[in-house]
Amino acid sequence: MRGFQTRSSVQDVLLAYDEHARPIRAEAISILHGSGRVLARKVVAQSNLPAFDRAAMDGYALRGEETFGSDPYNPILFLVVGRSRPGRPCDLTLKPGQAIEIATGAPMPHGADTVVKVETTRRIGRQVEVGEATPPGRHVGVMGEDVQLGTIVLEENRQLRPQDLGLLSALGIAEVEVYCRPRVTIIITGEEILPAGSVPEGCRIADSNSPMLAALVARDGGIPSLLGPLVDDRSLLRSAILDSANTSDLVIISGGSSTGPEDHAPSLVAELGTLAVHGLAIRPASPSGIGFVDGVTILLLPGNPVSCLCAYDLFGSEIVRMRGGITGGWPYPGIELPLARKITSPIGRSDYVRVATTLVDDQLCADPIATSGASILSSTTRADGFVIVPADLEGYALGEVVRVWLYDRTLELAPS
Amino acid sequence: MRGFQTRSSVQDVLLAYDEHARPIRAEAISILHGSGRVLARKVVAQSNLPAFDRAAMDGYALRGEETFGSDPYNPILFLVVGRSRPGRPCDLTLKPGQAIEIATGAPMPHGADTVVKVETTRRIGRQVEVGEATPPGRHVGVMGEDVQLGTIVLEENRQLRPQDLGLLSALGIAEVEVYCRPRVTIIITGEEILPAGSVPEGCRIADSNSPMLAALVARDGGIPSLLGPLVDDRSLLRSAILDSANTSDLVIISGGSSTGPEDHAPSLVAELGTLAVHGLAIRPASPSGIGFVDGVTILLLPGNPVSCLCAYDLFGSEIVRMRGGITGGWPYPGIELPLARKITSPIGRSDYVRVATTLVDDQLCADPIATSGASILSSTTRADGFVIVPADLEGYALGEVVRVWLYDRTLELAPS
Repeated sequence: MRGFQTRSSVQDVLLAYDEHARPIRAEAISILHGSGRVLARKVVAQSNLPAFDRAAMDGYALRGEETFGSDPYNPILFLVVGRSRPGRPCDLTLKPGQAIEIATGAPMPHGADTVVKVETTRRIGRQVEVGEATPPGRHVGVMGEDVQLGTIVLEENRQLRPQDLGLLSALGIAEVEVYCRPRVTIIITGEEILPAGSVPEGCRIADSNSPMLAALVARDGGIPSLLGPLVDDRSLLRSAILDSANTSDLVIISGGSSTGPEDHAPSLVAELGTLAVHGLAIRPASPSGIGFVDGVTILLLPGNPVSCLCAYDLFGSEIVRMRGGITGGWPYPGIELPLARKITSPIGRSDYVRVATTLVDDQLCADPIATSGASILSSTTRADGFVIVPADLEGYALGEVVRVWLYDRTLELAPS
Repeated sequence: MRGFQTRSSVQDVLLAYDEHARPIRAEAISILHGSGRVLARKVVAQSNLPAFDRAAMDGYALRGEETFGSDPYNPILFLVVGRSRPGRPCDLTLKPGQAIEIATGAPMPHGADTVVKVETTRRIGRQVEVGEATPPGRHVGVMGEDVQLGTIVLEENRQLRPQDLGLLSALGIAEVEVYCRPRVTIIITGEEILPAGSVPEGCRIADSNSPMLAALVARDGGIPSLLGPLVDDRSLLRSAILDSANTSDLVIISGGSSTGPEDHAPSLVAELGTLAVHGLAIRPASPSGIGFVDGVTILLLPGNPVSCLCAYDLFGSEIVRMRGGITGGWPYPGIELPLARKITSPIGRSDYVRVATTLVDDQLCADPIATSGASILSSTTRADGFVIVPADLEGYALGEVVRVWLYDRTLELAPS
């Protein structure tokens, strides 16, 4: 058992992935299940929105030029000859001096070109007084003003927002073609590991990584499936890797990723396919790597839960998202905060430093959490987020403003 | 059909909700389904983590003081008397001059107090050369150093992160008590509305709001169920409200929320319960409100999709999240950007202004999207986010730095 001879960077892992990236499959799904999914092809409008001229306000439809000269003290009278209601055709044609009562969303009658808001009118029997000059086109939703037939509504690779689903539905589009969510098998290895949910016994510990990784993978759009914990048996792990590569779009192996005698994963990946990168200059996740078996990407993550989280955050997350066609940014919101204490880190190594936010002289600061080692999982639950020290820096000074990546969003408060 | 006599604020809606807020139910769930859920009670550790002293590195366990004086040129020899492996009890007791080969995670043998990293040793048959002085306690994970028995691991009202699930699992906790996800019935009303997924016909339009609201409610932790579209029939809507109040934790009615003759929702809520707030000084969502029927909150949202989104963003989202016990911030990340054009808004009214981000002289700016009216749904898909102009401002000047709430996270890029 020996350490790593050389160490690579996170960028090397991502480049290796890029080289081996396979086309992403697509599927047609109902817009009702589209939120957060990524369009595999652009959507072109097959109809105008709105599909007809319609009222944008409750009021009276009439010819705008006939209201010119009116004001609250000199209203002009119109004869109300009918009513246009939403969802019903309106076959009436206005003659001069006539108006039609109209509700928001109802079709404009022939001959009318404007809607006078109900608030500026007074109804007197079959007549209505209009006390405001209203030019043609006011409060009318013109056919195609929202979306014109034939235009691109949403581009390929768009991650669908709730309002996108609304727009697609308004255009009569019931299904969209999106990238398949990647199936991600998470293999947990380790002689000493009991299944998640077990009570630890003696010197055996309960699996922390499968619930954590499953949640992270789902957050990033993947469909996790769990395998293990497996004992450190080479042939067992070989079968698990081959089976998973056969049924998954991505395989994550947690544990057995270092250079010890029981660390079978790296050499098995090399034997069954290619071990592209192994050993990273990152702390606390150096025993990480990436390889490829039968064209399927295999991520090697450390078994230590903190290191596992760090490695997942630094490259696992991006690879899962890319595998599902998600091109947007990191799942963590970033804020700029001064440091309450300095951070030191050797040149040549990237550090993932958990920080808590704290008030110092009424100024919100990021305070690095001191831990005795990489294995303190509660440091990631006590932390509000983390700071990355890039490999080319020796750290950050006290008071220096750094970017803090927040684990959740409790600091982003809505305006009151 | 008349407009609103007075208009309330978003704050009035939230206050009305607070007054009528009911206790939130709780349920026990597996930690495997815990991500994003909110703890209904604090979690106290029933065991130490780790539960035993263990190696934090691969190497040799020995007595630290016996390495004092060694260096790479003057290594000290130890006799290797055994091996400690993860998950297996280690009953060996070290005598002076002895060491035990140990793997990360394996229990410390009796008598050993430190682990010498394998990288600083050289194995020679049954002996090992140690070339680095290693004080007691180095590379040892001490029982309880991560979490001590009896301490609070996670507080009540915590929204669970992936790593929280990992920590709970490590502590042998398989289930947690969380607040129930609120069941939210979304009632769509409107004579002219065809079900989502329909192709619009004549002057009938397809429902945009149910796919949009269902996605928003799910994002905010609710379980949406859809009802409608219902025609504008008073007794039909009455039954729908009563049934929904009976089976839901929250009811959202979209459409028929204004003051026209077909706007039955506000008066029905008043008739069946309390209409607390109706008519807001917000644009474009003034025909909004809140009421209570049989103790269940009823949100009245406009039928116009843009107004519906605005009202949901301004108070619907917060109420859904509160109903599920989520106390964290808004689901939109906020960034500060200068305005590419001025925004005007009358005093006394809050405006929800869609903006696109754009480069002006290499500076990222927020550019308000000009629309002819509130009904341009594509303005919310073309926008990158929105700006809120509070009621006490007349707007913002060109170049003024404003807070932009991003619809998604494409601007938050991970560090390279």
